[in-house]
Amino acid sequence: MPQPLPDFYAVIPAGGIGSRLWPLSRADAPKFLHDLTGSGHSLLRDTWDRLEPLTGPDRISVVTGRAHRAAVEEQLPGIPDRNVFLESEPRDSAAAIGLAAAVLVRREPDVVIGSFAADHVIRGAQVFQWAVQQAVAVARAGYICTIGIPPGEPSVGFGYIQRAEEIVVEGAPEAARVQRFVEKPDLDTAKAYFADRSFLWNAGMFIARADVLLAELEANQPELHAGLLELAEAWDDRERRGPAVDRIWPQLTKIAIDYAVAEPAAEKGRLAVIPGHFDWDDVGDFASLAKLMSNGRKNDLAILGENARILSDAASGIVVSQSSRVISLIGVKDIVVVDTPDALLVTTSEHAQRVKGVVDALKLTGRGDVL
Amino acid sequence: MPQPLPDFYAVIPAGGIGSRLWPLSRADAPKFLHDLTGSGHSLLRDTWDRLEPLTGPDRISVVTGRAHRAAVEEQLPGIPDRNVFLESEPRDSAAAIGLAAAVLVRREPDVVIGSFAADHVIRGAQVFQWAVQQAVAVARAGYICTIGIPPGEPSVGFGYIQRAEEIVVEGAPEAARVQRFVEKPDLDTAKAYFADRSFLWNAGMFIARADVLLAELEANQPELHAGLLELAEAWDDRERRGPAVDRIWPQLTKIAIDYAVAEPAAEKGRLAVIPGHFDWDDVGDFASLAKLMSNGRKNDLAILGENARILSDAASGIVVSQSSRVISLIGVKDIVVVDTPDALLVTTSEHAQRVKGVVDALKLTGRGDVL
Repeated sequence: MPQPLPDFYAVIPAGGIGSRLWPLSRADAPKFLHDLTGSGHSLLRDTWDRLEPLTGPDRISVVTGRAHRAAVEEQLPGIPDRNVFLESEPRDSAAAIGLAAAVLVRREPDVVIGSFAADHVIRGAQVFQWAVQQAVAVARAGYICTIGIPPGEPSVGFGYIQRAEEIVVEGAPEAARVQRFVEKPDLDTAKAYFADRSFLWNAGMFIARADVLLAELEANQPELHAGLLELAEAWDDRERRGPAVDRIWPQLTKIAIDYAVAEPAAEKGRLAVIPGHFDWDDVGDFASLAKLMSNGRKNDLAILGENARILSDAASGIVVSQSSRVISLIGVKDIVVVDTPDALLVTTSEHAQRVKGVVDALKLTGRGDVL
Repeated sequence: MPQPLPDFYAVIPAGGIGSRLWPLSRADAPKFLHDLTGSGHSLLRDTWDRLEPLTGPDRISVVTGRAHRAAVEEQLPGIPDRNVFLESEPRDSAAAIGLAAAVLVRREPDVVIGSFAADHVIRGAQVFQWAVQQAVAVARAGYICTIGIPPGEPSVGFGYIQRAEEIVVEGAPEAARVQRFVEKPDLDTAKAYFADRSFLWNAGMFIARADVLLAELEANQPELHAGLLELAEAWDDRERRGPAVDRIWPQLTKIAIDYAVAEPAAEKGRLAVIPGHFDWDDVGDFASLAKLMSNGRKNDLAILGENARILSDAASGIVVSQSSRVISLIGVKDIVVVDTPDALLVTTSEHAQRVKGVVDALKLTGRGDVL
């Protein structure tokens, strides 16, 4: 086990519902609270368990919605109260991570923070920790550092990071400068990236000194930065925190950390990347989940649910069973069936990305009770 | 409205569960108790209502399992107690119809009985009644008579009846002798039958004098015939009926009336047919039900369920909703989704015939609780 890094602090934004996994994921049961890997733990808990050897138990914060406070504390029984950052409403990742940076830098000026999504799946904790250790070393040297995943296929579902030349940093033999960020590509472009070994998947992990991150944020999003400093100033006073959140948080600019910090930093040559040689998936939809659960085998029906009673001739796809109902599938291929007490989804792997549209339609048609 | 025919008596065998409509149809909710047409009545009640103008309310018997007695009486509140024939176990149609014939002929030697399935769908009651009136006239002349449906398409799902020359019977201008019965054909054969106007669908309706039917049964199935006479002799004695049923019924040969009576009669030239120019469907599976509910339109999703909450882009198929759950379908074609409190079926129209195999598999795997 690695030793905790004394100046490192992890932040886990746990905000997203995971709409493309509806009706499994929903407002009161967001994706990060589910056990999607059969580990016996929620994705949030798995994330915590991967980071804790690097930070110790007192140096991981979770940024989540007020509605999820109890569930998060149940998943992470040891988490100190002050490490649960409650959002009054979702304001995207720049605000969530920026708030953590602004609060922590006041307590500890040299702190290096790392941000890791609560709802990704990673296999290979030791390799992950080695990548983070390198990234922390790079961050100490003043870079904003990300961890990029060497692509396993020409995916059109992820953004890409192009590596440039190596950077010489003690303790980070694989460090390189980032040339540029690119959005989810079309298939031909993805194939070109896959052939060109300089492209890595953007896994949304950012590691930086809090002061460096805040300076970058100030340069690009001065209003957001100012709001975060004001909020951070009130944060550690229990009486002032609540009112400050209520007043300032809803006004903050909604923007992803990628746009507010990482891309501008890349343009200035201040963004670095460490390749992460571990299995990683953001489990963005049921097709991804089916693939993950089948370990990449195409002719397996994935089944999620402790009490699943399934009778099926389907050779592929996924069934999620949250009831004791018998589920019978006949003659269907690449099927996605998600059976919950109040909602049922039937689609195919091919159409799995379109589930978010159903969530939007349910909102519009007054059926938000099942979201 | 037609006048009741004084010598006519109808028998409605209501025995089959309708396994290919599982999990909608099941042991405690067989097909004949469902409203599959949106008429507001069960198929059994619809069958009764079509026949009652021809028989009056006291001359229709229902042959059903003991378990369905209460449900049948609820559907048919006016039915006299002595007109409910309870089977201790299913013994197929020859025993069911033969028992009715044997009991009725003792009460009324010249009675003409007609047998009509409890779970078929017919549209056009008046045309149906006109066909039955003709069939009764043919039966009085000593024939066993069936009603055949002029095919609307080259179906491979039904058996066929080949018409031969006309028969001259007063009151039955469309009567013809039956050349032969044929089992469900393959598609090429079905196309040939469809092109040849002499073939009609076998709708399983038989009309005959009770004594003629029993004589035919005696010739072909003497043991079954003897058992039925013994049972009939005890029938109208309330104290003897139950023990006689328990003793004799389980020993009776299980055979369909088609094989025990109709086919042999056809070979001897004693079977006649009246064409039934009404819409008829046996609703044998969910593909048939979808077609029936969509009135033959191919690009309609059929929805069965009063409280159905469906969000779907499916252009075809059927959803049966027996819960208030939201059902969302994305990118699926010709889909069949049947959502009940304890069982869910997902298949396609193409595979709808295979549902019976699931029922068999559930029995074998100890999941009979949902049958």
